[in-house]
Amino acid sequence: MNEFEIIDQFLALKSKNRKDVLQGVGDDCALLKVPRGQRLAITMDTLISGVHFLEGCNAADIAHKAIAVNLSDLAAAGAEPAWITLSLSMPELDQHWLQDFHDGLKRMVEHFGIQIVGGDTCRGPLSITVQAHGFVPEQVFSRRNTAKAGELICVTGNLGDAALGLLVAQNKLECHSKESMDYLLKKFQTPYPQVAAGIALRSRATASIDISDGLLADLNHISQASDVGVLLRWEKVPMSEHARKITDKNLLMKSALTGGDDYELCFTVKEDELQATQQALETVGAQCIPIGRMFGKPGIRVLDHDEEIKISELGFQHFK
Amino acid sequence: MNEFEIIDQFLALKSKNRKDVLQGVGDDCALLKVPRGQRLAITMDTLISGVHFLEGCNAADIAHKAIAVNLSDLAAAGAEPAWITLSLSMPELDQHWLQDFHDGLKRMVEHFGIQIVGGDTCRGPLSITVQAHGFVPEQVFSRRNTAKAGELICVTGNLGDAALGLLVAQNKLECHSKESMDYLLKKFQTPYPQVAAGIALRSRATASIDISDGLLADLNHISQASDVGVLLRWEKVPMSEHARKITDKNLLMKSALTGGDDYELCFTVKEDELQATQQALETVGAQCIPIGRMFGKPGIRVLDHDEEIKISELGFQHFK
Repeated sequence: MNEFEIIDQFLALKSKNRKDVLQGVGDDCALLKVPRGQRLAITMDTLISGVHFLEGCNAADIAHKAIAVNLSDLAAAGAEPAWITLSLSMPELDQHWLQDFHDGLKRMVEHFGIQIVGGDTCRGPLSITVQAHGFVPEQVFSRRNTAKAGELICVTGNLGDAALGLLVAQNKLECHSKESMDYLLKKFQTPYPQVAAGIALRSRATASIDISDGLLADLNHISQASDVGVLLRWEKVPMSEHARKITDKNLLMKSALTGGDDYELCFTVKEDELQATQQALETVGAQCIPIGRMFGKPGIRVLDHDEEIKISELGFQHFK
Repeated sequence: MNEFEIIDQFLALKSKNRKDVLQGVGDDCALLKVPRGQRLAITMDTLISGVHFLEGCNAADIAHKAIAVNLSDLAAAGAEPAWITLSLSMPELDQHWLQDFHDGLKRMVEHFGIQIVGGDTCRGPLSITVQAHGFVPEQVFSRRNTAKAGELICVTGNLGDAALGLLVAQNKLECHSKESMDYLLKKFQTPYPQVAAGIALRSRATASIDISDGLLADLNHISQASDVGVLLRWEKVPMSEHARKITDKNLLMKSALTGGDDYELCFTVKEDELQATQQALETVGAQCIPIGRMFGKPGIRVLDHDEEIKISELGFQHFK
């Protein structure tokens, strides 16, 4: 089995052909048609074994996450996902592993109605680079640098589950019940990006970002780019019932504020748009929970019932 | 220095902003405008240390090659290059290395008038994934599956130099002169993709591919996809004067026929289009050298002055 057969059997997923794909996998280039009146939004993320997922991690979950983290960036830009390219490097040819990887890819591709249109496969340390391509109507684009003082900061759902799930996966956290362990693990291993919420926020959010590095780190990008400060209220930050059963408050705070990997959206809205935004997000099954306000000079402050919390670290960084 | 500062200082190359880039590096997504009447052509290739380039290889050359191999795929599709995304994983933060990498990127980006619009950086084994994006006018697209029996097979330039250059880099080949060594080494380390030739071939070539895995392996893709055989004439295959000074004929044949990494274009033309095609390619500084003909059933035959050569291997494969 050579690399072309691997691509054909496990990665191309040729079952469905989108109308905007004139040439998919199998030539030097894919040839694609961006619909009239739409802009192309693209994002690329690499997942490396031992860095972004644990060694020995289920291949279907790796495939799921590689797609999810990229679609999450599209969601932050309010883009509708369309095409995927994928480069897979792996140390050896393991058909069972590839079949699992294929199954994980297939589930995500079918769930989001997207198509794999190209990529690469080679021998090397296990890593996956995915680029996601989506469409945004002309004039509409959620950015990071457009938040203004006085606007509310909201998130689409619970934070901290993924960071707690990582601890469960590493056998560093025991929960009250197996149900909670499974729930947190699943949130870490197979997050679902907030694609529909991103599209619903198109003309409502004044700025948005997806929470991948941690709430504070990602909010800091909005703060710096928009040149306005962030004032968060810890008691408003939503957490799942499974997370809330954990009694170590420091661990909860660390997980929800700096944990990352939750792939919820964080965005700003004008106060008088809050109700309409909540209704719009409810329609697509997402929440709209205000957790703070843009205020003052760039930087981040967190209050816990009016008492200021000292922040030592914002979130995950690859090189420090 | 964190990953955002690395991207900002060494990878974003923010100097020039193309008009079709509405948002480049620095947000969740890049936002891009494909010109009206154009299709988007995309291709993704990964280069891994020890597989695609030698360990300890100059960082500027790695950057050069990562861009070159992708632009070569665009050239095969007749696409005009526009945007680049790049994911760099590296084991440690080495600012000298990054500065060299930056310089190599900058030269290619300026040479081809393209822009880096996004990507990723993380800690991991040294590897680079690049996606190149280009434009092809509606209706025009050079494919692999459109060659017909009787058409001529041509290449845009010399073959085998890169494979010989690899041997020089590995200290496995001594040449007559330092000039020849340097020439071959350079052809291996910093190939230039035939972008202008690819555009000139748009409505002339009936099928085309870039020579990355080796002439026979790549021609075999055209043969299989087009369902027609290949008959090559070894004595017509162009080689540089530096390569021709090597007296080992077997080595020359192996390098030119199966060596790969030359990044010339191989294409088919109707016989009565040959002269016009030669003129068109001459205008952009490329050659158009007929080396054989599409003929009979799928598969590859090579003649050396009417004597058939036995072929044991077509070219490089990652997994066998």
